[in-house]
Amino acid sequence: MGLEIRALGRHVLIEYYGCPSEIIEKNELIEKLMREAADYSGATIVDSVFHHFNPYGVSGAVIIAESHLTIHTWPEYGFASVDVYTCGDSVSPWKAVDYLSEKLQAKKTESFEVPRGMVDKIRQFAERDIREVSVKPELEGAK
Amino acid sequence: MGLEIRALGRHVLIEYYGCPSEIIEKNELIEKLMREAADYSGATIVDSVFHHFNPYGVSGAVIIAESHLTIHTWPEYGFASVDVYTCGDSVSPWKAVDYLSEKLQAKKTESFEVPRGMVDKIRQFAERDIREVSVKPELEGAK
Repeated sequence: MGLEIRALGRHVLIEYYGCPSEIIEKNELIEKLMREAADYSGATIVDSVFHHFNPYGVSGAVIIAESHLTIHTWPEYGFASVDVYTCGDSVSPWKAVDYLSEKLQAKKTESFEVPRGMVDKIRQFAERDIREVSVKPELEGAK
Repeated sequence: MGLEIRALGRHVLIEYYGCPSEIIEKNELIEKLMREAADYSGATIVDSVFHHFNPYGVSGAVIIAESHLTIHTWPEYGFASVDVYTCGDSVSPWKAVDYLSEKLQAKKTESFEVPRGMVDKIRQFAERDIREVSVKPELEGAK
C-alpha cells in the first residue's frame, strides 16, 4: 500500500518547544542525550562535537555511521532545534525523535520528514550508468 | 513587499548530483571545502569533525557560531547531500550553497529552505512570557 519512494536517507527536522531551560542549557547533558538518542535509534556513533555558547545555548553534532544528528538550543526561549538524518533501514530516526521529546521534556514537538538522495534523481543526473543503488557502506576503522 | 516571517534560523537542504567521484571521495578535501564554504558565507567556525567510510564516502559537520553545516557523500553515485543551517542576518547560507556547487562540480544542484525556530510558535509554546526574541548569543571562549 502506498507509493514506494526510493531514497538513500531519511531526514527528520524537529522543533522542541517549551523545554525547561535548566535541561537545554547544559552542554554535557545535551551531548549525553543526543548520543543516547542515536544509540536508541539503532545508529552506530562515530564521533560527536558539542559547544556551549555565552551566555547560554548548546550546539552540537553526532556523526553516526548512518549520517548525523544535530542540535541547537535556546534555553532563554525553551527551544531546541534538532535534525536526525539516517541512511539504511536498520535505524529508525523516529525513535531518536521520541526519545529526545521525552528527555528534553518538550511541551510541544513538531517534526517533518524529508527523503534525501532520491534514487531516481541520482540516476538521472549521474555521469555514468548506475544500476544498483544501495545504502551507506561500512565504517572504516581509521579516519 | 512579501510576508515577514520571523524565525531564529534559516536551514537550506541541498542535493548535489553528478559530482566527480574523485572530488567527493576525499575526506580532507571535503573538510577543507566545507570550512571554506562556512567562511565564505560569513560564518564563524567553532569546530569540525569529518570521517571517511569504507570503501568510500565522507560524512562530516562544521559547527559554526551561527549553527552548522553537514555533508554526506556517495562517490559511487556522484552524489553529495548537504545542510546549511544559519542563525542571524550576518551569514548567508546561499553563499555556502553556491560555493559548494562550484567546488564539488555538481552537474545539478537542488535545494530548498526551511525557516527554523518560528518566533510565533516559540512564544506560543513557551512556559513563560517571552517579549524580545533575538538570535544566537556570542560564542564562549571555552567549550
